[in-house]
Amino acid sequence: MAAYKIVLVRHGESEWNLENRFCGWHDADLSAKGVQEAHQAGKSLKEAGFTFDVAFTSVLKRAIKTLFFIQEELDLHWIPVTKTWRLNERMYGGLQGLNKSETAAKHGEDQVKVWRRAYDIPPPVMDADHPDLPEKDARYASFDRAVLPRTECLKDTVERFLPFWHDTVVPALKGGKKVLIAAHGNSIRALVKYLDKVPDNEIVELNIPTGIPLVYELDADLKPIKHYYLADEATVNAAINAVANQGKAK
Amino acid sequence: MAAYKIVLVRHGESEWNLENRFCGWHDADLSAKGVQEAHQAGKSLKEAGFTFDVAFTSVLKRAIKTLFFIQEELDLHWIPVTKTWRLNERMYGGLQGLNKSETAAKHGEDQVKVWRRAYDIPPPVMDADHPDLPEKDARYASFDRAVLPRTECLKDTVERFLPFWHDTVVPALKGGKKVLIAAHGNSIRALVKYLDKVPDNEIVELNIPTGIPLVYELDADLKPIKHYYLADEATVNAAINAVANQGKAK
Repeated sequence: MAAYKIVLVRHGESEWNLENRFCGWHDADLSAKGVQEAHQAGKSLKEAGFTFDVAFTSVLKRAIKTLFFIQEELDLHWIPVTKTWRLNERMYGGLQGLNKSETAAKHGEDQVKVWRRAYDIPPPVMDADHPDLPEKDARYASFDRAVLPRTECLKDTVERFLPFWHDTVVPALKGGKKVLIAAHGNSIRALVKYLDKVPDNEIVELNIPTGIPLVYELDADLKPIKHYYLADEATVNAAINAVANQGKAK
Repeated sequence: MAAYKIVLVRHGESEWNLENRFCGWHDADLSAKGVQEAHQAGKSLKEAGFTFDVAFTSVLKRAIKTLFFIQEELDLHWIPVTKTWRLNERMYGGLQGLNKSETAAKHGEDQVKVWRRAYDIPPPVMDADHPDLPEKDARYASFDRAVLPRTECLKDTVERFLPFWHDTVVPALKGGKKVLIAAHGNSIRALVKYLDKVPDNEIVELNIPTGIPLVYELDADLKPIKHYYLADEATVNAAINAVANQGKAK
């Protein structure tokens, strides 16, 4: 029997998903469909009888709002919510803001796939005059500049996410709290890679659908027993394919 | 010149304000008008150039959602939000859930006004089978029963609010944080009484309008220099009168 259960939700579709642009740390809002997906995630959790004591999310509004709409459906506005940059999407460096199809047409689909999905190859560094430069954003103003990335590969995302997992999420789980995480494709992928020990060369093919709760059941040593999505297989596969196709030239 | 500035907002109209029932710790939702008021509060703050580093609210959704809609207008979803029962509305004991007009017709307007507004006379204690009993509510499950009130006079509200003010809000202010509090008629009244040293017999006449930001400018010793609402005088007066009339028999 599972000792612990944790629920992960990737934010609903954002306005930049819709425009097929590399979003990363850009604070894009949810699209109308994304809002709907978030509410649906909350409804699915409610129907399946889930409740939560505590929630964690990023400092980006598409995740924060997804969490809020889930809280609304579960009538759990009151639970403590911790927002951390360590749950942010992967920082996309110089690609941030570019249209994915255009980038693919220019650099080739393979290069885009490498930048999006290779474990340890970061995209080009963000220029100092980029409008999304973290050190000029109030939400990161209190941090040492040295800790703020100007680009990230997935390996970097895993490394900056894990301290939060170990210091905050695990103690909450071990303290008996029912934990909900609303985050991003790559920060959830980072956790899945860590929990399931997915090899570096396989993680590239793992796609997390938007707005579908992903339940991990863990044993007493936090080793996964099983995981499943709170949706039927056809819905999950359609959502995974939609995400996988975003990097392709049109 | 003011050393510190703090903004207080009473939640927008709730469904129970609308029904004219004693709400207290009952977790009533915002009415459609209340949602609108919350957004308007956010817009007023934005127009006046306010920004915030941190926010505090109660564990009741009408205040949490008011705060969220203000954050939405200010594009400040990412700021840390602490939710505490110490910012809850006054606990109305045995009156909680009763229609105010019916109570006034039964007990007389004067008795209702005493229960609503007298500084140190609590309403009757809540029965053990009341649906809102705090000790049966998940959000209070981790607290010692002895700390959970079964009724409160405003004096009780002041006394349970002040530890949060001293331990959390004041250090945030003194640490240079710009602070926003989204709370309730009586928890805001408790703070105003403390800051402005309002005598016990005068506080009864002080009404806080819903959804209008109240700005306090404080000197280096946290003594108020001045305070003002972010709305024109006619709007403020109309809103104050609406609140004052709630306890009257119809």
